[in-house]
Parts: sequence; structure tokens; C-alpha cells
Amino acid sequence: MVERFNFSRTPYIIFGNGRFEELPGLAAGYGRNMLLLTGSSSLQKSGYYSRLTEPLEKRGINFDEARIEGEPSPDIVDDISNRFRDKKPDVVVAIGGGSVLDAGKAVSAMLPAEESVSVMTYIEGVGAGKEHSGEKVPYIAVPTTSGTGSEATNNAVLSRIGEGGFKKSLRHDSFIPDIALIDPELCLSCPPKVTAASGLDAISQLLGAYLSTEASVLTDSIVERALELAGRNFIPACTTGSTDPEVRAGMAYASLMSGIALTSAGLGIIHGLASPVGARVSIPHGVVCGTLLGEAVRLNIELLEGEGKAGRKYLRKYARSVALLTGEGDARINESEVEDYCRLLINTIEDWLGQVSMPRLGEYGLGEGDLEAIAEKSGSKNNPAELSRDQIKQLVRCRI
Amino acid sequence: MVERFNFSRTPYIIFGNGRFEELPGLAAGYGRNMLLLTGSSSLQKSGYYSRLTEPLEKRGINFDEARIEGEPSPDIVDDISNRFRDKKPDVVVAIGGGSVLDAGKAVSAMLPAEESVSVMTYIEGVGAGKEHSGEKVPYIAVPTTSGTGSEATNNAVLSRIGEGGFKKSLRHDSFIPDIALIDPELCLSCPPKVTAASGLDAISQLLGAYLSTEASVLTDSIVERALELAGRNFIPACTTGSTDPEVRAGMAYASLMSGIALTSAGLGIIHGLASPVGARVSIPHGVVCGTLLGEAVRLNIELLEGEGKAGRKYLRKYARSVALLTGEGDARINESEVEDYCRLLINTIEDWLGQVSMPRLGEYGLGEGDLEAIAEKSGSKNNPAELSRDQIKQLVRCRI
Repeated sequence: MVERFNFSRTPYIIFGNGRFEELPGLAAGYGRNMLLLTGSSSLQKSGYYSRLTEPLEKRGINFDEARIEGEPSPDIVDDISNRFRDKKPDVVVAIGGGSVLDAGKAVSAMLPAEESVSVMTYIEGVGAGKEHSGEKVPYIAVPTTSGTGSEATNNAVLSRIGEGGFKKSLRHDSFIPDIALIDPELCLSCPPKVTAASGLDAISQLLGAYLSTEASVLTDSIVERALELAGRNFIPACTTGSTDPEVRAGMAYASLMSGIALTSAGLGIIHGLASPVGARVSIPHGVVCGTLLGEAVRLNIELLEGEGKAGRKYLRKYARSVALLTGEGDARINESEVEDYCRLLINTIEDWLGQVSMPRLGEYGLGEGDLEAIAEKSGSKNNPAELSRDQIKQLVRCRI
Repeated sequence: MVERFNFSRTPYIIFGNGRFEELPGLAAGYGRNMLLLTGSSSLQKSGYYSRLTEPLEKRGINFDEARIEGEPSPDIVDDISNRFRDKKPDVVVAIGGGSVLDAGKAVSAMLPAEESVSVMTYIEGVGAGKEHSGEKVPYIAVPTTSGTGSEATNNAVLSRIGEGGFKKSLRHDSFIPDIALIDPELCLSCPPKVTAASGLDAISQLLGAYLSTEASVLTDSIVERALELAGRNFIPACTTGSTDPEVRAGMAYASLMSGIALTSAGLGIIHGLASPVGARVSIPHGVVCGTLLGEAVRLNIELLEGEGKAGRKYLRKYARSVALLTGEGDARINESEVEDYCRLLINTIEDWLGQVSMPRLGEYGLGEGDLEAIAEKSGSKNNPAELSRDQIKQLVRCRI
């Protein structure tokens, strides 16, 4: 049976090792003025920078540049938008991790606005709550990490960190990038810790979308193949295979699919916690997701087991997900084996967290005293099980 | 390994039984002027017509209407565009089979043009070969048959039939509908012959995209689930299950996915023949695809078996496709079984063609004398095997 579903549009996707070289031509297709957003200096050092800028110069494309250091705040988005609005960029190109891609997405959405209008006006839950028209400058997203899937999502996460901080989304279906160019070779120089955290972000997004109450046959079919590739390539990408373009391609594909799936299916408790945790202390988003992954899955499975028939369909999906992650995708899972597979999933994740030495939240200064505020601000999103505030606190406590 | 691929964007998809009722609200979201394209009178008779027009009237939406009878010609598209251009529709809504959806797509693309410009200017291969800018009026596609997948494709097939006739595409990625609203209940009144022909069109598109030289891991993962649903629901939809909304939903999903997959992966020899055959004699597109399906698969398999290692990966995919179609999707197919599965695929298709009494091409007036001209105008598209002109003639001859 095909249940009812909605599916958001996807970007035009250009995927493959070596395809970065197509970027100057793609950008030129939109006009002669380009705004380029990048992250830290690693792009310049890698040689990719000149492989972009030299062809742009040859084509006579004017490009302005801005740098995004760390996760973007509304102020940064306003500042960049105000600085380059008069240049009337024909296209925004962002090359970087999730923070850079989210910043690019938000800037492309704010360039057509009046200077007096802050992006805060449109941010969910914390701003003036005004609806954005969706009008934006064309946007090309080029990821250099495999994690957030921002190259395919309809939202940009913006944050202020500390007491009273937030981490919330600017969201509109028209903000889905026009082009997502994924050249997995750009991830070859991504260090092991970043590879691990972003890889676990992608995996938690795949599982979150797969177990979502809004999952559909379409998001499931996309996620299932991505889980196979993520399971096969995650540990190699963090270790011996980090310089293997095929390994990087597997993780880049998993990340891209996680973005497509979550845009339509939504996510679960992990991402319901990632915002309040990330708003409270300065901690990479992927680390929050990665460190909570095992405990969140354990808790969900425990609660679903107590739900009887209603929980059964989700337990079967957890069972199927570990079959996919461990390369047994064609296994026919009997009803009597579902529990065993669920245990295997928990063990597999715990094993991965150990292998990549995933840090705990306490290492970033999170403590018992933060739990109440975090639990209060968390949301279960489309989590398959309902969680009480105490259960949410306990979940975070496990990883302090 | 994830091979390089491109993937076109998808429409925003709204799928599910009963969701037709959301159409007035969706259309109203674009503005107060709407152009509505429908096909024969069956929509009016069914009651769906008033379920659309009454809410539109209540909302104060002005709507103009045009009817599409049969497959659309460039003249029809020009005529409708010219007739309604001055009304400045904010949105074009088409409700019908592939012909109506293609007409709506072409009209939405021609409304912003000058009156003096014919759609012929932009049609591939037969017009002036000018590139369309992609500017169009927003377009909502609502299929009432499960076959062409036009609700998700980037092209509109327009034709002139007879000697010197053609059947060619107006194509641009921006022509992918903004919204595809698929309410499988709209197909409940679709007669068995139309259900059979369009169902086989969808299946031939799924197989064509799956076996395409441009298939990707993403199109494969979308197609595989659709093949399962098509295999389970095709015969029921044509027979005892025709009034079962779940059966219709299975075929509607398969058709939608075939449109998404073919837009990125392309198609094979069947669709390379459908245009010249359909341009020569008046015959439903689905009948051409359906009647050729068995022989085309047989010929491809024969040629791939002669290709050694190069053909092997495609033979494995044919084997996997029949496992999916027959509900053995989790079967682990050994190398030694590939040939047996390929035979099973040919037999399964032949059995289906028999069960639905698929007509032969001769019944529509096609004869030996047409073969040379058809073979000359045919294209192998992304067919996995290369076919000689004689092989193509022989393929069509088998189904005269």
C-alpha cells in the first residue's frame, strides 16, 4: 500500500568525482556577477580555489567573496547581505561544510530584501514570524564535508549561542538550492574528527527520516540505498579509506540523500535535541547528533517495544536499517528476529562511536544544570515514539 | 561505488487518495486567474469537475477552460496559448492523461511568449531549434491515468501524424511541473484498455530508465521500489482490482517514479521507436510501448548475452527487475541464475500482454511498408545494447 505523502522538490544534482571543474561554467550560466562564500582557508590551500577563480576570471565573471567562520548567526547573514546587495549578484555560490552552505542559503534569500529587514524577521520560532515570499537569488551549494545534506534541504540553521541562545531555521521550499554540485574529492582533505562527526550526522538524519512518522515509500527507497552506502563507507572514511575517492563518494551520496529525505520526512528526537544543545554550548552539530545517536536509538527501541502493535512497524524498520548498514540488505528478517536486529543496531552504533572516539557532551561544557532548559526547548519532531521530559533529560544525561 | 550522475529536480509532489480536494487551494496560492485544461468529458461526468470548480468560484478565482482531445499538436498549443495570453493566467492546471498534461506543460511554457512565436520554434529536431528561456507560467499537473509520468517530466510530446509527421519534445528542466498532485482515485474510472496500455507505458519507462546507460544509484533506488509496486498491481488494475484505490495507488506511484527516473536517466529503444511509430499512424502511445515491450526486452537480452562482460551488468539488472516485478525483491540472484531470470522476465511480460489482450501494431494500420521509414527515424536513446537498422525493423515486424 502506498500511503499518502508529500515530497519536496530536489535541487538539480551534479554528482561525481572531478566535477568541481564544472562549477565555473554553471555559475556563469546565471550571469556575470557572482557572490562566493567559503569557510576557513582550507579551500585556498587545497588548490580548488584557483581551479574556480582562474576560469571565472577568464570568462570575465566578477566575483565578490565572503568568509564564514563557524556556525552562522543572523548578524553574519545580515551583514553579508547588506554588504553585497548593491552589487546585485546573479548567483550565490557557497563551498564548504554545513555552516557555509546554510549561510549561503540564507544570504541568497536575503539579497532581494530591503536593507532594513533582518533575517530574524523570518526565522522560525524566534523572529517576528513573518513568512518569507521565497524570492531569492539563484544558489549553488558545493559541500566539502559529508554530513548535513544542506545542499538538498529547504532550511538554513542560524544561531546565537549561550544563555537565551537559539539555533533555528530560516525555511522555504524555494530555498532548496538550484544546483547541488557534489564532488566527493573535495572531502578528501577533511580531517578524521570532522569526517566522523559529519558522517554520524548524515547517518542520524537517514535513520531519523526513515523512522519518521512522515516517512513515505519514496523517502524510504532513497534512504535504504543510502544506509547501505553509509554502513559500508563510514568507518573507512574516518580511517584507512579517507583518501579513497570511492569511499568519500559513498559518504557524500549518503549525506545528500539524508538531506533530500529529511526535507520531506522530517527528523526525530536527535535533531529535536541538536538545536537546544547547540544553542547552549559551542559544539559542532555533528558531534551532538553522533554522540546522542546510540542512546537515542536505544531509548526509541525500548519505548516502541512497550507500545505493542503500534510500535511494531517502526521496530521492523530499525531491524531493516541495521541489515542495510551491515551489508545484509537482502536479508529476509523474520518477525522473531526483529528484536535481535534491534540489539545489533544499538551495538553497531556503539561500536562505531568507540572506533571514532566520539566525544561526550561534557567535553564541551554541558552539565546536569543545563538539562532542564534543554529538555524544555527540545521537540520530538517526527520521532516514532513519544518521549517525556524526564526521558529526554535522561537521554542527554547518558552522554554528558 | 557511486558512479557520477546528474539528477533533474522533481516537482513538489502531493500523493494520496482523496487529495484532489487540495487542488483549489493550491491553485489559489498562485493568484486569481487560472487556466484549466482537461481532456474528454469524463472529468465532468465523474463529479470531480464540480469538486474543483465550486470551491474555485467560492474563492473568487477566475478560471478559463480549454479541452484537449487526443494527442496535442503544435497548432493546438499555439491556439490555446494565443487565446488565453491576454488573460494573464497566474497558473495553468491540467487534469487528464499524458496528452492533457503534455499540452498543459507546453501551454504554460508558451504563455509568456510573443503571439508571433510558435511552439514549433522550440521543438527538438523539427523546429527552428531555438533554445527556450525556460520562463513559464506556474504549472500544476494532475494525472487521471497511470502511464506517462508526465506529471514529473521535463518534456511535452507534441505531434503531427501521417507521412512526414513527427512526435517530438518541447523540453526544458524548468518545464518540470511546479506541483504534481496525484490522487489515484481519479484513475478508478479509467477503462481496462487504457489502464493496460498506460500501465505498460509506465513499466516500459521503469525498465528503460533502469537499463539505461545513464541510470544512477539514485534512479535505480527509485525505480526498484516502483517495479515491485507495478508488478504487484498491474494485472489487478486491469481486471479485478480496477475499483480498488490501493491497487490504483500502486500504479500511480509506479507511473510517477517512471517520470522522475526517465527525466534523469533517459529511456531505451522502445521509446526510441514510440515517436516514429506514433507519428506514422494514429495509435495510443501506451499501446506502442506495451506491444513492443516483450520483443524489445527479448532482443536486448539476446544482444547483451553476445556482448560478454560488457553486457553482464545489464543482464544482472534485467534479472533483478523480474525478481522485483514478481515479488521476489529480496532474492539473492546467483550469477548462474541470471539467464533463467532473464527468461522469466520475457515470459512474464508475454504473459501480461496476453492477459490484457494488448493489440498489435497492424491493427492500427502499420505495415511492412512503414518499417524502413520508422527504422530510419528511430533512435536507440540510452538503450543498453546497440541495435542495427535491420534489428530495429525486425523488432517492429514481430508486433505488426
